[in-house]
Amino acid sequence: MRTGITSASAVLFLMMAVPMPSFATESSVTAGLMPMPASITRNVGGFLISTSFNVGITGSSSPRLERGVARLLSRLEDKTGVQLPKEIRHDLNSTLIVNVRSEGPVIEALNNDESYSLTSTATSVRIEAPTTDGALHALETLLQLLEPDAHGYVIPAVVISDAPRFPWRGLMIDCSRHFEPMEVLKRNIDAMAAVKLNVFHWHLTDDQGFRIESKRYPKLTQVGSDGLFYTQEQARELVQYARDRGIRVVPEFEMPGHSTAWLVAYPELSSGSAPVAIRREFGVSSFVLDPTREETYRFLEGFLAEMATVFPDQYVHIGGDEAPAPDWKTNPRILAFKKDHGLSDNDALQAYFNQRVMTILLKLHRRMVGWDEIFNPGLPKDVVVQSWRGEESLAKGATQGYQGILSAPYYLDGMKPASTHYLADPVPRETTLTPEQQKKILGGEVCMWGEHLDQRTIDSRIWPRTAAVAERFWSKQEVRDPDDMYRRLASVSLELEQLGVRHLSSEDAGLRELAGREDIEMLRTFATAFEPVSFGERVQQQHTSQLTPLTSFVDAVQPDPPARHAIQRTTTQFLATGGQQTRDSVEAGEALLRFFDSVGASVPEVEKLMETSPRLATLRTRAEQLAELTLIGKQAIEFRKTGSVPSAAWTEQGLATIAAARKPGEMVQFNFLAPLTELVTAAR
Amino acid sequence: MRTGITSASAVLFLMMAVPMPSFATESSVTAGLMPMPASITRNVGGFLISTSFNVGITGSSSPRLERGVARLLSRLEDKTGVQLPKEIRHDLNSTLIVNVRSEGPVIEALNNDESYSLTSTATSVRIEAPTTDGALHALETLLQLLEPDAHGYVIPAVVISDAPRFPWRGLMIDCSRHFEPMEVLKRNIDAMAAVKLNVFHWHLTDDQGFRIESKRYPKLTQVGSDGLFYTQEQARELVQYARDRGIRVVPEFEMPGHSTAWLVAYPELSSGSAPVAIRREFGVSSFVLDPTREETYRFLEGFLAEMATVFPDQYVHIGGDEAPAPDWKTNPRILAFKKDHGLSDNDALQAYFNQRVMTILLKLHRRMVGWDEIFNPGLPKDVVVQSWRGEESLAKGATQGYQGILSAPYYLDGMKPASTHYLADPVPRETTLTPEQQKKILGGEVCMWGEHLDQRTIDSRIWPRTAAVAERFWSKQEVRDPDDMYRRLASVSLELEQLGVRHLSSEDAGLRELAGREDIEMLRTFATAFEPVSFGERVQQQHTSQLTPLTSFVDAVQPDPPARHAIQRTTTQFLATGGQQTRDSVEAGEALLRFFDSVGASVPEVEKLMETSPRLATLRTRAEQLAELTLIGKQAIEFRKTGSVPSAAWTEQGLATIAAARKPGEMVQFNFLAPLTELVTAAR
Repeated sequence: MRTGITSASAVLFLMMAVPMPSFATESSVTAGLMPMPASITRNVGGFLISTSFNVGITGSSSPRLERGVARLLSRLEDKTGVQLPKEIRHDLNSTLIVNVRSEGPVIEALNNDESYSLTSTATSVRIEAPTTDGALHALETLLQLLEPDAHGYVIPAVVISDAPRFPWRGLMIDCSRHFEPMEVLKRNIDAMAAVKLNVFHWHLTDDQGFRIESKRYPKLTQVGSDGLFYTQEQARELVQYARDRGIRVVPEFEMPGHSTAWLVAYPELSSGSAPVAIRREFGVSSFVLDPTREETYRFLEGFLAEMATVFPDQYVHIGGDEAPAPDWKTNPRILAFKKDHGLSDNDALQAYFNQRVMTILLKLHRRMVGWDEIFNPGLPKDVVVQSWRGEESLAKGATQGYQGILSAPYYLDGMKPASTHYLADPVPRETTLTPEQQKKILGGEVCMWGEHLDQRTIDSRIWPRTAAVAERFWSKQEVRDPDDMYRRLASVSLELEQLGVRHLSSEDAGLRELAGREDIEMLRTFATAFEPVSFGERVQQQHTSQLTPLTSFVDAVQPDPPARHAIQRTTTQFLATGGQQTRDSVEAGEALLRFFDSVGASVPEVEKLMETSPRLATLRTRAEQLAELTLIGKQAIEFRKTGSVPSAAWTEQGLATIAAARKPGEMVQFNFLAPLTELVTAAR
Repeated sequence: MRTGITSASAVLFLMMAVPMPSFATESSVTAGLMPMPASITRNVGGFLISTSFNVGITGSSSPRLERGVARLLSRLEDKTGVQLPKEIRHDLNSTLIVNVRSEGPVIEALNNDESYSLTSTATSVRIEAPTTDGALHALETLLQLLEPDAHGYVIPAVVISDAPRFPWRGLMIDCSRHFEPMEVLKRNIDAMAAVKLNVFHWHLTDDQGFRIESKRYPKLTQVGSDGLFYTQEQARELVQYARDRGIRVVPEFEMPGHSTAWLVAYPELSSGSAPVAIRREFGVSSFVLDPTREETYRFLEGFLAEMATVFPDQYVHIGGDEAPAPDWKTNPRILAFKKDHGLSDNDALQAYFNQRVMTILLKLHRRMVGWDEIFNPGLPKDVVVQSWRGEESLAKGATQGYQGILSAPYYLDGMKPASTHYLADPVPRETTLTPEQQKKILGGEVCMWGEHLDQRTIDSRIWPRTAAVAERFWSKQEVRDPDDMYRRLASVSLELEQLGVRHLSSEDAGLRELAGREDIEMLRTFATAFEPVSFGERVQQQHTSQLTPLTSFVDAVQPDPPARHAIQRTTTQFLATGGQQTRDSVEAGEALLRFFDSVGASVPEVEKLMETSPRLATLRTRAEQLAELTLIGKQAIEFRKTGSVPSAAWTEQGLATIAAARKPGEMVQFNFLAPLTELVTAAR
């Protein structure tokens, strides 16, 4: 029987609880805030939530605002346990007054005023906003302010004045590679609203499935979807759901490439070769729509007109990326067309196609969005380019007068830490763009591609990391301290789970399934040390397709688990004094020892579990490496603590073990190799 | 920093893992089986699941069976991680052959043949069933048989022949007191299918809300539901979903009592007084439909005819319970009616009402089900009485020729252990009913009333306990060993969570919300010692209504947590030798010490948490009691181990502390007071 083991999660909590001196000021009031408001002043005292709490809407009211207030009340009840009156009043004697100047536009619009102010005292809370959207943001801030004190739950006395930095703050979810049920999308939209994102970019079609019903072209889903698609009624419901939360829905219909699902249903639209089935494999397909035939445009006109009745947003995303189109270089008819129209290459032909589609969209009073590839000097200026190629490409567009949104640094399947995404700025401090050009950068979008996830794991890939990016899009440029971000992210992460997303519980569920038993404490501790490899690395390690079961260890573990940053930070703290022992460095050393101890101790337990769990048994090498790595960590700390110097052989051996652990295996990687390397190097 | 603490969950797992000598034989092959098949023979070896696994349907096929096979394949993939071919073949060369004689009736029927046989060898698996329903049951058994071995996942070689003991094996869910979204019902239907239940009894109307859309009487939901109801389209979808899994849907429309929601919408149907709003309070209401006016029957005829188009099942439940109806004793018109028709009292008037409703149902080719109160000597024999009053009432009906189903011992809101429900038998061994009368007992239904739960907590109230009752309804009377049931329940519980119900993850979510932090290991250990009090006790301790927030500690903790039985069993094992030390008793003593140690050690940690969590702070007294109780437990074991005798004062004090801990507090109770009392008494 093991003794002396403290679970890793407890250790990590303690590490994270050590306050960083730089945030001592006002840190309590901002603990739950993300994104950080433009301005916040803390006053003394606060407003205690009690059964006499009530809400009055003054100024412009609307069913949408009332539903927002009803959600606020329900969440406040859940968080405080206090039963609250549900009637919404319309007078100034209420404890919470929401004063909205106007409902704002009938559908969400890009240029909507989303600002608000929130003033709380010991006796009342007052929200002012020019539009309902601003008020909805204020209600989310109110919930994030809630904090416990000796008497109950309190809204601290503050004066907040807030407005977003960028008007386009999006999350894209790919529902083609793997279909996501409505409830998954709804809970993700709830979470988006909580962190003030305002664009849900719905990637509805791709080679692996056509996910939106067309009554006009029913084969698109009959043949192109495995029966997994959204009816128009469901799509309208989701648009309404998002609208209720101040979120626009921008649908994406990929063309002319990524179009296997169109073409398996309507092969007559193909450029020559047509697929016989939707694509199960990932990667770029060579099937493309035929841009040279009028039938194609008549089809698209019919389809887009139908979609315009489902999606009211001003913007429609046409994809436009990755269309290698070998047929365009070999099909004699297409070659002739290119020649006739003076289209020198495939890019020119795609530009022609985009122009034609744009004309269709303009007739439908829609504006076009597309990925980098649509960018073409001949393109009219009211197109929006979504940059997956990077900041440079985005800036280039802006200098030429094109509006753009940045996505390249926000690809979640890169499995990068939240801090990496967080520090990438659509308009970085060092930008060379003029203020006028900067205005062309509308904001950014987080992209969640769906190859390696399903409804069970998607939440942990999106959250909480996306909350950090949401802050990048909303808050001032100078709000960019990763330590402070992680401090607040821990709190927001919990709030998001309570709101319905399952990034925390899905890891437990996955580990339980792997372990085949309810008690997974040791496996959870073991898992603390790992994170999934990036999309690119996974593809190299394992052949996956749409049909691959996604219930491996890599699917259970979270990207950027709280452990990762905590260990890095604690290591920095431990090494900061250059060998001198301070209270901070001693505490940090103890915390690191406990971490290595508990994670190391989990190894034999998990190895025992492997005997009855064949799917865990594949992790044997990883387990052995983990045992070695934690031992090295403990030894390194002991050297440092005792001031003794390890042998060169020890250092060499330690670094070699770390190097070996970096090698690919089981699609997971250790998340503490960088600080461990620092520890080993520092001991020398 | 604490040391030497092992989490309670790990301890409990170890305790449960100690094999009980009585099940050593064949215990591995039955580990995941629930309900236990009628006959099972284990042979040597088994069938390894690999990528070459494929399924052939021979005999009668149907889209329903094919969907069932598709679900099997998907779940097998999830559990094994092996990607399987999805094409269903129709030849005898498949590795799994499903041979069904006929699809069975077009809708689920009571007398459907649900039997099946399953034979597995090292090279193939063969399922035979007279109907699709039998085959669907066999597929669930197949999944429960799956076990890991050194090479992967294996179906052990067995010969199973199986059929249910009772034809009516139900679960009732009350969706009126709290509305349950469709996905909650769907995942519960998935879980029902996994344990071979076959009736979903849908309690759709009650004082607190009318939950099914009527196009003919739209005010029923417009006025009577807070907007929370199922559309007819959704109801049809659920019927289809259940049918796909071999489950009938019996809708319940409560009348003439429990009818506030009818009457707030259509007050003209009332017996005199009519409500002004749906009822928020619980308990019995005095509003009833007027049984003396023809308008009432015309209304019901219209309503039930409409519902017959939504619910194809042969049975319709009309409630009929708890209709005190003061108006029937005071309204002059009703008094006159009673006199004119020779109806001596309210019971007679209700019997008249039931007769009239029955006539309506017969015209619609439906049979009537009602609670105990509908039972009346004048009632035609083809009514089915659902007994919430008990076995005696049920048996009395049977002797008079009425069909019945038992529910009294299966009320989940009593928060009783699974074993208590498990041992209650619709036709107990000692029955005095003749074999002919016994046939009148169709089976039983588990009842989940909805006063004190919502969509976040319902799963943990229903599961895994209902799986034990499902075995009672399916398996032979003599399968009734609680220890063996709990051994298998642990495995089934996990399987149910993987299938989608959230009885495990919802406790974590609730505790996280209470703690306000992600790491809840200590709070989870603390919670291990508690369970919710019964519905009746909760009502005495707290005034609750439909509007009460359900996010207290009592809502997070599970009824009958695995700890409860494990501690009881380990205590029995520890004390079994009468003081003599055997290997078993020593091991049991160590396990108990670890439990008391870890739970006791959680107390100061949780008390620290209370400082920042006002909603946990209300548990202070409970925490202090827990610290005392675990100390007493440890001392009692030490006395026993060392053979020393405690002072009379110690025993008296210990028993007094236990008695104090039994007193009501925070709507939870300690789940180990019985074994603790045994330990204290034994030490004496």
